[in-house]
Amino acid sequence: MPKMLLSFFLATVLAATSAQAGYEYPHDITNKISLLRTKSGAGVSFVDEEWCLSWRFGIETNNLVDWAMYPEECEGYIWRYMLGCQYEKDSKVVTEEAYEYAKNLNLPYDGKIHVWVFDIDETALTNLNHFIPKHGFRAKPSNNEHALEESPALPATLELYKKLGTLGIKVVFLSLRTEDLRTDTENNLRNVGYETWEKVILRPDSNYAGTSLEFKSGQRKKLEESKYRIVGNIGDQWSDLLGTNSGLRTFKLPNPIYHVN
Amino acid sequence: MPKMLLSFFLATVLAATSAQAGYEYPHDITNKISLLRTKSGAGVSFVDEEWCLSWRFGIETNNLVDWAMYPEECEGYIWRYMLGCQYEKDSKVVTEEAYEYAKNLNLPYDGKIHVWVFDIDETALTNLNHFIPKHGFRAKPSNNEHALEESPALPATLELYKKLGTLGIKVVFLSLRTEDLRTDTENNLRNVGYETWEKVILRPDSNYAGTSLEFKSGQRKKLEESKYRIVGNIGDQWSDLLGTNSGLRTFKLPNPIYHVN
Repeated sequence: MPKMLLSFFLATVLAATSAQAGYEYPHDITNKISLLRTKSGAGVSFVDEEWCLSWRFGIETNNLVDWAMYPEECEGYIWRYMLGCQYEKDSKVVTEEAYEYAKNLNLPYDGKIHVWVFDIDETALTNLNHFIPKHGFRAKPSNNEHALEESPALPATLELYKKLGTLGIKVVFLSLRTEDLRTDTENNLRNVGYETWEKVILRPDSNYAGTSLEFKSGQRKKLEESKYRIVGNIGDQWSDLLGTNSGLRTFKLPNPIYHVN
Repeated sequence: MPKMLLSFFLATVLAATSAQAGYEYPHDITNKISLLRTKSGAGVSFVDEEWCLSWRFGIETNNLVDWAMYPEECEGYIWRYMLGCQYEKDSKVVTEEAYEYAKNLNLPYDGKIHVWVFDIDETALTNLNHFIPKHGFRAKPSNNEHALEESPALPATLELYKKLGTLGIKVVFLSLRTEDLRTDTENNLRNVGYETWEKVILRPDSNYAGTSLEFKSGQRKKLEESKYRIVGNIGDQWSDLLGTNSGLRTFKLPNPIYHVN
């Protein structure tokens, strides 16, 4: 699926394609961490790491807003974070809280259909394999078909998706992916466990001039002006969650890899 | 100054008073970290720490909103964070970004006075010494006068304050502290380096029924309806930054110790 992502950041991304078929979670590839470049050449460089931790605090809290990819000097730290267990644990804290919230919702029966908005990339699905730096291994994809392989579900999000289903909350996927990728995207979602949905809303085409925040706000407004009430909204970018018609409550998943306005 | 804070969380806080005169930054008391209780009894418990890291991600991103104090099992982790260098570094990433933003502002000269809103506790001032757990040392304050001692400036915030002054941006302090503490608070601010300001806005009294978010939104609205434009807004609580009239841009400082709605 990298082609749809590449429209965002082809120019900057270290786009090695190291997709593996059938893996369960990103840290299945933890064994490759040691191959990632580190500044010190000897694994963890503690001083760098403190700054990278602060940088990650800055971006996840939406204090730092002018960045596209993580800083080069944090590459080692970021990938240890992503491929170790911390990314998974951070994601779970968010989705478990989201379910607790959803479970205790006391919503009016006023004819509105209650939906939860899910972003797709780095929210419903994880494209981690496509972003792993190529330093030290697989400088070129060994098999081009891997590059077009499906992206796995982010396990924490898939679990939330399933639990929301048991509560009768319907799901709307809202993504900056373009319409020409609809079939691939819907197949991908279905194949990894997102079996049904109310809508998948995609960007008409890559010429759309607005920001992600503008596009998503406008689409959510349309939803709420028709028959829907957005009771929850989850994404990895603040631009998924800010703007108008954000939903009764929003949930921010981690993503220190890239930033979309 | 703890008496004003105690109105928020007297019931829950581990309110040992270990204030020290004249210290420069919280990690001057780093030598006390080893005295803090840890779960394992042997310093760092890595498994606990991963969960505490996730919890901190959850609260700082405003995903977790239903908490008052940090979880007991994270006490060791939280205080290593606060008293080590990471809290200082995280704060600096925020305030340095705030200055970069302020420096590049291109504001209209339309008669409005440009102000930056600063929260006080854990933003302009740090009350860390009053929150340090008493386990292992100073079960009782050795000197009651210490308990009424001034709170030091948070160095990162003081630096931002001074730099904003050079840009001609005026400062409004906006706090949930009550009016009866005005003299103490203003003296404290002045004594630690906040030499001048446009306004210090405090809560009329502790009977004010609204939340902090409501109080602060209302006060900011009044400011903007009079002669002011809020060009920036910095605080350690999301309730300092959300609501109405938040300012052209907001900055969230870390605070994993306590939460105010």
